[in-house]
Amino acid sequence: MTYMLCRSACEKIEINSMKNTNEQPIELQTAQDLILDFCSDLEVEQVPLAESLGRYPASELVALSALPGYDQSLRDGYAIGTGGLVAAQHSIHSFQIVDEVAAGDTRKLVLGAGSAIRIMTGGLIPANCTAVIPEENCEVTGSTLVVPHFFPEPVKTFIHPRGSELAEGQVIVPKGVSLSPEHLIVLAGVGYHTVQVIRVPKIRFFCTGSELVSGTVAKTAGKKFSANSPLLQGLIKRAGGRITTSQTVEDDQEAVATVISEMLQAGCDILISTGGMGPGKFDLIEETFCRLGGKVIYSSLLLRPGKSTLFGILGNTLFFGMPGPPPAVHLLFNELIRPAILALQGAKRSIPQKCKARLIEDLFFPKRGLARLKSGVFHLKDANCLVRQAKRTETANCYIYCPAPQRKMRKGEMVTVHLLEPASLCT
Amino acid sequence: MTYMLCRSACEKIEINSMKNTNEQPIELQTAQDLILDFCSDLEVEQVPLAESLGRYPASELVALSALPGYDQSLRDGYAIGTGGLVAAQHSIHSFQIVDEVAAGDTRKLVLGAGSAIRIMTGGLIPANCTAVIPEENCEVTGSTLVVPHFFPEPVKTFIHPRGSELAEGQVIVPKGVSLSPEHLIVLAGVGYHTVQVIRVPKIRFFCTGSELVSGTVAKTAGKKFSANSPLLQGLIKRAGGRITTSQTVEDDQEAVATVISEMLQAGCDILISTGGMGPGKFDLIEETFCRLGGKVIYSSLLLRPGKSTLFGILGNTLFFGMPGPPPAVHLLFNELIRPAILALQGAKRSIPQKCKARLIEDLFFPKRGLARLKSGVFHLKDANCLVRQAKRTETANCYIYCPAPQRKMRKGEMVTVHLLEPASLCT
Repeated sequence: MTYMLCRSACEKIEINSMKNTNEQPIELQTAQDLILDFCSDLEVEQVPLAESLGRYPASELVALSALPGYDQSLRDGYAIGTGGLVAAQHSIHSFQIVDEVAAGDTRKLVLGAGSAIRIMTGGLIPANCTAVIPEENCEVTGSTLVVPHFFPEPVKTFIHPRGSELAEGQVIVPKGVSLSPEHLIVLAGVGYHTVQVIRVPKIRFFCTGSELVSGTVAKTAGKKFSANSPLLQGLIKRAGGRITTSQTVEDDQEAVATVISEMLQAGCDILISTGGMGPGKFDLIEETFCRLGGKVIYSSLLLRPGKSTLFGILGNTLFFGMPGPPPAVHLLFNELIRPAILALQGAKRSIPQKCKARLIEDLFFPKRGLARLKSGVFHLKDANCLVRQAKRTETANCYIYCPAPQRKMRKGEMVTVHLLEPASLCT
Repeated sequence: MTYMLCRSACEKIEINSMKNTNEQPIELQTAQDLILDFCSDLEVEQVPLAESLGRYPASELVALSALPGYDQSLRDGYAIGTGGLVAAQHSIHSFQIVDEVAAGDTRKLVLGAGSAIRIMTGGLIPANCTAVIPEENCEVTGSTLVVPHFFPEPVKTFIHPRGSELAEGQVIVPKGVSLSPEHLIVLAGVGYHTVQVIRVPKIRFFCTGSELVSGTVAKTAGKKFSANSPLLQGLIKRAGGRITTSQTVEDDQEAVATVISEMLQAGCDILISTGGMGPGKFDLIEETFCRLGGKVIYSSLLLRPGKSTLFGILGNTLFFGMPGPPPAVHLLFNELIRPAILALQGAKRSIPQKCKARLIEDLFFPKRGLARLKSGVFHLKDANCLVRQAKRTETANCYIYCPAPQRKMRKGEMVTVHLLEPASLCT
């Protein structure tokens, strides 16, 4: 599938090296599948365990040793063996305290009949120990331990046996799953100090637009401050990618060609542009990309926003040509580029997860024609999922999906939402 | 409230400078309230907009200028004014194309009657313009523009008027809310290049336990690898805190006192310890903390895990004494320390949000007595919230709350869950 697409893209370029105007727009999901087809694992690197949270292991991680590694006490108290003086009531036992085991003590002690050894939480259980009696259930007079509420067969021994949590060789983290705090706990416990993970992709981007000004230039009618540059820097960092450079470029083929060439030469796994997409004669990304030998995989989606968005490859670099409006960049970043950033690290699940929610306000769209994704605020109430459209400066946590033929979605209707990160709430 | 508590803590220390054994355990929510009482905003710093995602503004951020800043075109097409030749059908107009406005062109053009000006998306709308006709609805022959489907009163003008999104002075981000991609878009648009944010807290931690080994030392029965160190490093980084140092320390009062003193002297907003909590005679954190002049705010929670956990203050530093088991550290970090990290930055909402979910498996607890929080996997299905207990090496995304008297929670029961970050799904 991948190969065929590359080939057809090449053929297309041979036929028309400037611009491919006949390309059929495709569905969002098809676009996502195509992108993931081009994402194979990047190289492996070794990182300290303390820096591995959120990273993806190079292969499944297994227990290097059993967990716990030795029989250990679950309480501060007294390790007792067999025997002990039994008082008349048959429920009071007494033992002679003969030693003390702190956590970290590596001596292999043996409990004699009628003896007890003081032990700390985490301490190594002596041989012949039948139970640890928590301190709060003991009475100590001199070196005599009295256990008033002791039964010959204690319900709970407070011994954490070797290997009871994990056997040696057992899988801790499967391939394709990012490392979580839970994993770190177990990995540290079985002796991982470093882990082999897949490196994060290097990303470069440029924002086109002669109307864009940056720095602290005074604003003039006709000029705008670039929002895409800070937006993309934030989004890439949050998605775990590594930004190497970014730049603002004039709407000019030569300037764009120079930037693309320089960024490719400097090396990047993902190259992103904003602006310069669409039908106007000033729209220049696709033409420049093709002229430089880029292979277009698709250049139009059956989606609004996103109608004008390009995905292609240039050597080993994935190229995303995004439209100019920042809300479209935000959406397409989450639906297309973030999945690529994760998939290049071997993530098994990378596209935003979908779930159903009940719309709590009517939703209208000005135009019929294409499917839409609208920024939404998803929330839970009394164990139900509710959603409404996000306001202009409100933080969205999902996109509400509106199928192509619809222009209205009514309050109370069940709709599909795409959840933003973390995408782990849906089955 | 805060003052009274500090005072009572001081008095308690005067009476018993070594250890306060009579302190009453408190509920989790009381503990959270007490901690937040001690969290006031740290100092303000200025950061580039591109590095501000997730940070908290020092004060509400308002629009420095209107958005958009000028009347701009929403399409590549033709700006038309009044007049134009009308054909017999009354629906075909023609105009003379007299100029061209690229995005970024700052000339203040004026449209004469019967004239049209080619304009790009984002271009400055000329004076006297009534509408922009998108390119795809136009026919151009030489310098003549023909609009076949033009109506005297177009439904949509494709003009984005100055100030239609935001008026100057309008609030973009309220105080206490973290900066999101949506905010960055608007802030950039109105001319923010940098933002005043509250600095992130400096955090130091140490892990006590003579049984702990670090580095690549071979494992011996009786010794364990420290899981809390990589765990806390990951959790602190993910919560946005700045880790300055961390250390492993023997179970020894002098060693602990030295580490606390050194870390305080080097400066930190939050100091965390793990281990050395609980009733045994080797449990040393509270004693050492008090000896150094620390004021204990509480030292026991009505919660499992968390029964033995200390919160206190030492100078301007918040001190959290956590128990040793890593799962308890994980839970208490999320319920107590992460809220403090956010609240010190001025966050309005910082404790994990609660919601209801249906239990899909029975849940048993070995002991009666204290309320419990159990790691859970929360998910959505058909717009319903479901939850089950997390397996040992599975990534949890919530805690399931079990009230004090209960030992069993049945499949199908509605339970309360505390959602882990992001905590923005509940109302």
